[in-house]
Amino acid sequence: MLGRVSVCDVGPRDGLQNERRVLEPSVRAELCDRLAAAGLRRVEAVSFVRDNRVPAMAGAEAVLRSIDRTVDVQWAALVLNERGYHRALDAGIDEIRYGLPVTNAFAERNQGTTVPAALELGLRLVERARRDGIRCTISLAVSFGCPFEGAVAAESVLAIAEEVLAAGPDELILADSIGTGVPRQVRRLVGTLASPGRVIGCHFHNTRNTGYANALAAVEAGATVLDASVGGLGGCPFAPGATGNIATEDLVYLLEGMGYDTGVDLDALRSSSVWLAEQVGHELPGMVARAGDPCGIASVA
Amino acid sequence: MLGRVSVCDVGPRDGLQNERRVLEPSVRAELCDRLAAAGLRRVEAVSFVRDNRVPAMAGAEAVLRSIDRTVDVQWAALVLNERGYHRALDAGIDEIRYGLPVTNAFAERNQGTTVPAALELGLRLVERARRDGIRCTISLAVSFGCPFEGAVAAESVLAIAEEVLAAGPDELILADSIGTGVPRQVRRLVGTLASPGRVIGCHFHNTRNTGYANALAAVEAGATVLDASVGGLGGCPFAPGATGNIATEDLVYLLEGMGYDTGVDLDALRSSSVWLAEQVGHELPGMVARAGDPCGIASVA
Repeated sequence: MLGRVSVCDVGPRDGLQNERRVLEPSVRAELCDRLAAAGLRRVEAVSFVRDNRVPAMAGAEAVLRSIDRTVDVQWAALVLNERGYHRALDAGIDEIRYGLPVTNAFAERNQGTTVPAALELGLRLVERARRDGIRCTISLAVSFGCPFEGAVAAESVLAIAEEVLAAGPDELILADSIGTGVPRQVRRLVGTLASPGRVIGCHFHNTRNTGYANALAAVEAGATVLDASVGGLGGCPFAPGATGNIATEDLVYLLEGMGYDTGVDLDALRSSSVWLAEQVGHELPGMVARAGDPCGIASVA
Repeated sequence: MLGRVSVCDVGPRDGLQNERRVLEPSVRAELCDRLAAAGLRRVEAVSFVRDNRVPAMAGAEAVLRSIDRTVDVQWAALVLNERGYHRALDAGIDEIRYGLPVTNAFAERNQGTTVPAALELGLRLVERARRDGIRCTISLAVSFGCPFEGAVAAESVLAIAEEVLAAGPDELILADSIGTGVPRQVRRLVGTLASPGRVIGCHFHNTRNTGYANALAAVEAGATVLDASVGGLGGCPFAPGATGNIATEDLVYLLEGMGYDTGVDLDALRSSSVWLAEQVGHELPGMVARAGDPCGIASVA
């Protein structure tokens, strides 16, 4: 075994947030419980944003109340402002994740802010979370390319990352929010940032079929956390299969096949993916749920 | 630039052979011409197999007569026996590709032969092609896993590969025919076989979302030829998007983004992919044709 890779399933949040069919909090909690039962030890369960902005994420408190909290899982929530932070804290979350955009155009259009203001808020949340005794992950959105500004210079991502890391968050995630990245960029960013005592993670979408090559490049460059969503759910509901997160079960197949330990039961996860496809009412882009592991590649020792 | 990678588009053959809608030879020839116009310099245009076994590939001679042969493209044909070889030679092909299975179960079920008999035929075809002045590629089928035997030992693939390479084919291709492989296997096989004077290529399917990570691993381990099919066409027509070859345009996006030179015009190839989807009557699994290159990643210098 090459070592442990911590996989965080973001399906209940990033996966479901754009689905046309809105799932009840009880169903979203069942998804969380199924992921925990499959061996996931980190799940991004909810986001604390305005219900009218993201109706699919309404009822975050109800989701967290329904989840079986006796299992050993770090339950995370996305927050984008201090109001969200306080809601998350009140709901008993284990970890908050703040999405910090690295381009002004994305900051403005996605969150109505600027990079400097978002950075300031991010640093404040790191400090608050430490005081409040919960974990804090800062996720740098559009680190590999921006839908509004196009190419993003590695230097500017690295500069923001170093400012964040100096504040001592529990981890830093580099997010390829629109799925344009290639492993050359991943190696440059992760390779520069990774060092002992820092936890660097990555978040990839498979919009251009580079997501899994990026994930492997990230781990080989020193990342120890990868986001993924069960079934590859996520992205635009009007182009199924086209723009989701990398699928957790496909990532587990790849990583276990490479000799990494994910702690995930692939068969249980495949079942959860099939169940989820029924809940959302359409096929999911993940492939291993359908294709299986006929050669036992994913169980290499 | 890191160097040239030769991409062979197998869409007109491996891509179309399982399609429900059978395309006329003139349409298949138009596909070939479009690929050539997009900068592909190698195309697997046809197979010379029995028409009643693979109706979608009927009329190979007519396809080759319709193709514009004035352009600088190596036109290749799959053959599985000597009768096919002679048809290919008579039709004026530039290159024959022989599919040599590395497991007896696959040899029996796919071609009604055995590994030793297939190897003997392969070596004979290498010799014949050299005498006849055409190129010969030997493609080792199921090198990364077999649908009937399961896991395939690297040692047995390497032993067959060395026997083939000793005969001096123009190139040797390692084929992941069912898309189970992971980069660990690719690095082992390609890394062991690649050396100066040998041309090693790979052929990947994206059945479990490992195809592009495998392709990059192959190039980085020393492979200089990669098969792909425009749009990611191929595999089972009853599960669209699930089991095709890696898509040529997505591979070009990845390779050019890494700094390799493919010689392919990505925009022209994307147009061909859109055109092909109309011809076959369904969406294709390739993603870059839809998603584009908004950050100019694929035009990195």
